[in-house]
Amino acid sequence: MSGNPILVEAWRGASVESAHRGALAVVDADGGVVLALGDTQRPIFPRSAVKVLQALPLVASGAAEALQLGDAELALACASHNGEPAHLATAAGMLAKAGVDASVLECGAHWPYREAFQREMAARGETPSTLHNNCSGKHAGFVCLAHHRAGRAPLFDFAKGYAQPGHPVMREVTQALQAATGWDLSKAPQGIDGCSIPTFGIPLQHLARAFARVGTGVGLGADEARAARRLREAVAKAPFMVAGTDRFDTRVMQRLGERVFCKVGAEGVYCAALPGRGLGVALKIDDGNTARAAEVVMAALIEAYVALGDGEALLMRSLSHVALKNWNGIAVGSLRASEMLRAAAV
Amino acid sequence: MSGNPILVEAWRGASVESAHRGALAVVDADGGVVLALGDTQRPIFPRSAVKVLQALPLVASGAAEALQLGDAELALACASHNGEPAHLATAAGMLAKAGVDASVLECGAHWPYREAFQREMAARGETPSTLHNNCSGKHAGFVCLAHHRAGRAPLFDFAKGYAQPGHPVMREVTQALQAATGWDLSKAPQGIDGCSIPTFGIPLQHLARAFARVGTGVGLGADEARAARRLREAVAKAPFMVAGTDRFDTRVMQRLGERVFCKVGAEGVYCAALPGRGLGVALKIDDGNTARAAEVVMAALIEAYVALGDGEALLMRSLSHVALKNWNGIAVGSLRASEMLRAAAV
Repeated sequence: MSGNPILVEAWRGASVESAHRGALAVVDADGGVVLALGDTQRPIFPRSAVKVLQALPLVASGAAEALQLGDAELALACASHNGEPAHLATAAGMLAKAGVDASVLECGAHWPYREAFQREMAARGETPSTLHNNCSGKHAGFVCLAHHRAGRAPLFDFAKGYAQPGHPVMREVTQALQAATGWDLSKAPQGIDGCSIPTFGIPLQHLARAFARVGTGVGLGADEARAARRLREAVAKAPFMVAGTDRFDTRVMQRLGERVFCKVGAEGVYCAALPGRGLGVALKIDDGNTARAAEVVMAALIEAYVALGDGEALLMRSLSHVALKNWNGIAVGSLRASEMLRAAAV
Repeated sequence: MSGNPILVEAWRGASVESAHRGALAVVDADGGVVLALGDTQRPIFPRSAVKVLQALPLVASGAAEALQLGDAELALACASHNGEPAHLATAAGMLAKAGVDASVLECGAHWPYREAFQREMAARGETPSTLHNNCSGKHAGFVCLAHHRAGRAPLFDFAKGYAQPGHPVMREVTQALQAATGWDLSKAPQGIDGCSIPTFGIPLQHLARAFARVGTGVGLGADEARAARRLREAVAKAPFMVAGTDRFDTRVMQRLGERVFCKVGAEGVYCAALPGRGLGVALKIDDGNTARAAEVVMAALIEAYVALGDGEALLMRSLSHVALKNWNGIAVGSLRASEMLRAAAV
């Protein structure tokens, strides 16, 4: 990541106080590069940004149809959600359709990331379960796929260890990721994700191409192309499920619908499909900052590559040039996509 | 900040997932440079890292003595605290000695940064006041200085606007900062801090020298040298007050006592005095990450420049090479001071 350019600046008064470097790729479904900044060849861990790719087998296999999963459930399978009541209920409903409960989940439990939701739960005397894990919908999707693959085996038995690399379900999910990205995962750097499934190092150029494929179907198998379209439709119809209150992905897709499919990942990763332009986007902030850097870059790229109406443009500008206030509500600065990024992304 | 080196790496498995660049200076009280990495001449906003410098007038003026402020109160005047009950009570006690209450504070209110404390407060049905602001002790110190300077004027009237650059109290505080750093603040970049007082752009080399002065008294006026010694002693005796439960500064100074005076600031700033070596330290992470970058660098510098016993060395190593676990408690990686930093800081 040496030499990656500054993509976001944090201004205080008339000074740049802090800055975020990173790399990004915007490519078409054939891998044609529209924009590449920084090192887009180095493998990076895409983390939760590729949940839609990991959900392809759920739909392509017929499992989603067999269990009659609807828009909310499919959107949740692609989600890093806030752990709000609707997210919990939907994840629990997916598991119920498969005939199991949350005890099957191997994602671990954590408090919702949003502090206000933590406080609301604490005020009600609640503590977090695996359903609150931001990945519980993805894991519930894995369990639904396991249900489809279990045959006559009891699901609790068959699903056990589904988060491990060698389990048939995780092998199928990993194969889908490899096919969509065109990157040999058997030779890729490997790590363990926050929710305990494997994460693989994949170059941004390959991730961006995978998302161009998600947006267009080009380069995917017929079942996977159909699955990608179904998942994008589901998220466009139920954007609350993919994230939640006040979240970037929810706000953007509530406003822009199917014109953008964007998905955040941990450690400053963002991926998006821009179907109208046939483009895929993948970016990684060197320092791993998602909330104040990766989101700002993604907003600037949507501004550059999606035709926006006036209100839409105002929303996106508020996300690519974010006003900062202090504890007294006094304006102290802003987060801004760098001039270099603005000039390059046209 | 172009070209600043990588100081901290975030590893996942056998890969560097993210990295933090920055600059740092280690100097003696005469300004002699022991170590400089990156751009140490560019002015940076030191934020809360210079609270001890801003507290010098409180002691040097005689205000602290007149109000009989003790170790806990003086430590709190230098603090970015957790908003725990002892912090609130101590801040309230300082104000009571000056004859006023928390309504005089101009720092604004915020929930404690630690999520667990937010949840505990929410479970008790509490909401944050200005006393919870991590800067309430610093502001209470300003009010105590105002009490000393108010003469016959009612303190509420005299103190009003104390956080503004033109108020006599803030002018005195700013003058102390200028004298200690040897940097002309009238020409420096200026911003508004989180608690609404001005923050000034100062090069790391000047900040580091100021902390060498705090640790040795060399280069300070007699009153300021005495005040610096008193404040260091107070923090060493009451390290809980300067930060709180599980915080870096509290843990380090509980263990190392007067051998280290370290202080965190927002946006990845850290300063320290290492009196035994006569050194001052100042560092800034480019991307502004304090918890997982600035702290790791400071820990590595303490390892390099302070003679440590076995248990002390273990503590510092646990802070400069931090094990990371996921939601299931599985080891997934670590935060590490970079090899470059380790090799340079000797």
